[in-house]
Amino acid sequence: MTNILIIGAGRSSSACINYVLGQALEKNWFVTVADADPQLAEARVKGHPNGRPAWLDVTKVNDRRDLIGRADLVVSLLPAHLHLEVAHDCIKLKKHLITASYVSQELYRLGDEARDRELIFMGEMGLDPGIDHMSAMRQINEIKEKGGKITAFRSYTGGLIAPESDNNPWHYKFTWNPRNVVLAGQGTAQYLENGKYKYIPYNRLFKEYRVVDIPGMGEFEVYANRDSLLYREVYGLSDIPNILRGTIRYRGFCDAWNALVKIGLTDGSYPILESEQVSYHELMEGYLSPQNKSGSVRDRIADLLKLDPDDEVMQKLDWLGLFRKKKVGLANATPALILENLLMEKWKLEPRDKDMIIMQHEFEYELEGKKKELISTLVMKGTNSNDTAMAKLVGLPLGIFVKLVMEGRIESKGVNIPVIPEVYEPVLDELEQFGVVFKDEVRDL
Amino acid sequence: MTNILIIGAGRSSSACINYVLGQALEKNWFVTVADADPQLAEARVKGHPNGRPAWLDVTKVNDRRDLIGRADLVVSLLPAHLHLEVAHDCIKLKKHLITASYVSQELYRLGDEARDRELIFMGEMGLDPGIDHMSAMRQINEIKEKGGKITAFRSYTGGLIAPESDNNPWHYKFTWNPRNVVLAGQGTAQYLENGKYKYIPYNRLFKEYRVVDIPGMGEFEVYANRDSLLYREVYGLSDIPNILRGTIRYRGFCDAWNALVKIGLTDGSYPILESEQVSYHELMEGYLSPQNKSGSVRDRIADLLKLDPDDEVMQKLDWLGLFRKKKVGLANATPALILENLLMEKWKLEPRDKDMIIMQHEFEYELEGKKKELISTLVMKGTNSNDTAMAKLVGLPLGIFVKLVMEGRIESKGVNIPVIPEVYEPVLDELEQFGVVFKDEVRDL
Repeated sequence: MTNILIIGAGRSSSACINYVLGQALEKNWFVTVADADPQLAEARVKGHPNGRPAWLDVTKVNDRRDLIGRADLVVSLLPAHLHLEVAHDCIKLKKHLITASYVSQELYRLGDEARDRELIFMGEMGLDPGIDHMSAMRQINEIKEKGGKITAFRSYTGGLIAPESDNNPWHYKFTWNPRNVVLAGQGTAQYLENGKYKYIPYNRLFKEYRVVDIPGMGEFEVYANRDSLLYREVYGLSDIPNILRGTIRYRGFCDAWNALVKIGLTDGSYPILESEQVSYHELMEGYLSPQNKSGSVRDRIADLLKLDPDDEVMQKLDWLGLFRKKKVGLANATPALILENLLMEKWKLEPRDKDMIIMQHEFEYELEGKKKELISTLVMKGTNSNDTAMAKLVGLPLGIFVKLVMEGRIESKGVNIPVIPEVYEPVLDELEQFGVVFKDEVRDL
Repeated sequence: MTNILIIGAGRSSSACINYVLGQALEKNWFVTVADADPQLAEARVKGHPNGRPAWLDVTKVNDRRDLIGRADLVVSLLPAHLHLEVAHDCIKLKKHLITASYVSQELYRLGDEARDRELIFMGEMGLDPGIDHMSAMRQINEIKEKGGKITAFRSYTGGLIAPESDNNPWHYKFTWNPRNVVLAGQGTAQYLENGKYKYIPYNRLFKEYRVVDIPGMGEFEVYANRDSLLYREVYGLSDIPNILRGTIRYRGFCDAWNALVKIGLTDGSYPILESEQVSYHELMEGYLSPQNKSGSVRDRIADLLKLDPDDEVMQKLDWLGLFRKKKVGLANATPALILENLLMEKWKLEPRDKDMIIMQHEFEYELEGKKKELISTLVMKGTNSNDTAMAKLVGLPLGIFVKLVMEGRIESKGVNIPVIPEVYEPVLDELEQFGVVFKDEVRDL
């Protein structure tokens, strides 16, 4: 019997744990699910004969090493900044490690040691990052094998609410970490267009969105991610003149979010003084400059935003309750935290709500003297708020990859991300059985 | 003989060291100046019979404690984040500690321990913070003693170039930490107006400046500081309905700086990829959205900024060389670092340049049924780039306070800032001998 340790039983863990437990009897695996909350771990294991919940405070070095020492393979579903300690343990104790998080520079530096010890350290094995890498690499390698030359690659992902559960004017609900949504895009987005670097600072990011057609779904908005250029080399696209990664939102979202940015509500750097005393109305009034004195706070905010008071953006702000005289009720909170707290109430996924993931890759390439375009699109909906497409698409690749490692089908040792055919081919093939199917359209340009 | 240890012999240390050494023979002090660069320490001591340069890597705990152990009083001129270790040593070894930096929460937490050991821990004993506290508190207490009720307090400080050395279109040169100038204002400025909180996010900070008259000097621009509200209680102004702290710049500065913010050049969070390859012209072109395609990069930037191409702001950008095809030449640099590097060349203080400090407090108060205004203004110029008003006004209060402590004239133990009469009265009195004289104007409102 072999031992698998899954550390972290939080929101995004269920699909991965279910997959691994589902294989455990047949494959003769024993699965330990460890969490700081032992009841959460127990709820995930659900009394499975080959499963065991374990209590683990991951900052307790000896407890952590004890659990890791007894495993053959470790899946870390911890917050990203906690992976490194686990990775050091895995080096020392000679265990494979799998995560769905971005691979940090520090983790990459463990690559030689992991390779020397014949360990598989696989990161970015979720949805985004994860399925985006795998599905793009399959297409890139196919185009190259046919002799095509790729001149543009644009890749967009959105964690959205399904149309049938979309019942608010923002057309958005939280299906993932609210904090990341509120702080998204701070910094400078960088991408390549016609061989030239393009930069979009945060103050223009939600103004300079593009409108993208998703076949069968209609038009959506896409704002640029910060990291478009990071994968050029690993994707084998070093000389490509056009590359962009972006985030998908429903139409109307970006203009309204830009209003929140402009007002100042997404600043997460310093707390508002006496924030527990202030009402939303007072907060909004506080953002108005004293020169701008006539009219209601709502009208003056519209004026600040250079919008008609009847503009749809203003109606979205109304719907959030930003002009109500209700107390914020949060001590020592930054504007971003106040906004996050409000949105968590307003954008809450209801039990029967279905989420929806859209991922679309757009390739332009030249083949036999012809210019072509390939649009490859994944649309996948969840079942309800417990069984989301998001959790499934993050967890299934992890689970499938665990199986591949246990079956000895992975040769690549050291720190990697899933851009290697021996990884992405079997993972994508098995994902299709779970309905993860990209639809491709090729047309001449 | 008593021993004084001054840690840090950098740019801002000379006035403090000169003052202390100047008193040393008469007072029978022995002064050790310690720095990571022993030649710098030697240059500051200049062979003074009661002085000694010492080499100190402040991260070497034993070396640091050895030096501190032999002193009676320690002045830390280190960067702010290094004070805390020194403070812990001073608690352990029972030494007084003086700094010119903002007192952190961590340092305040040492207050009880310092008081129990009868130690004087004085922070914010420079210019801003420092002279601003002392000069404001003297006025506040005078108005209160006369029976006045203060209804507004606004306090502005600027580290500027003197008019006679002002020979660039920005009317600005660096007399202080360039990095702090480039990143100034990020976050949300908070202040009080007519009893209401006002918030200005970074994206509007340099648009919403106010114009302030400095008696004898003309009009200047002031943008709000982040920390206006922090001192209400220590200043004894808890119920004041109007309080604002701000930074003074020459006319025209804020609009031009706002252009740099809007373009995206003040973002210091993530590096520009391949920044060493890029020219300033390419960098500026990169900030233009692809929709905005006709005309020169300069004209398109003017369009982005909604400015006439002949606007003074555009001329300021020209003068910086932002549209030249010269390479940035800095690897792995953020936009803010690229800008800082460019400005360090363009805004360099020349050897004969004189700097100028302006500090102005504006009080509105009610006295015997009349509304009055008091404007209290300090204007002080430096001699040349070595002997700046900035260095003098940061260093002299430190030096004078060292003397007061050594003479046993300070009763207040524990962690403090100079808002106490026994501190500010003698310091301000002696500063007058060095030309630090505020001019007051009172008028009826």
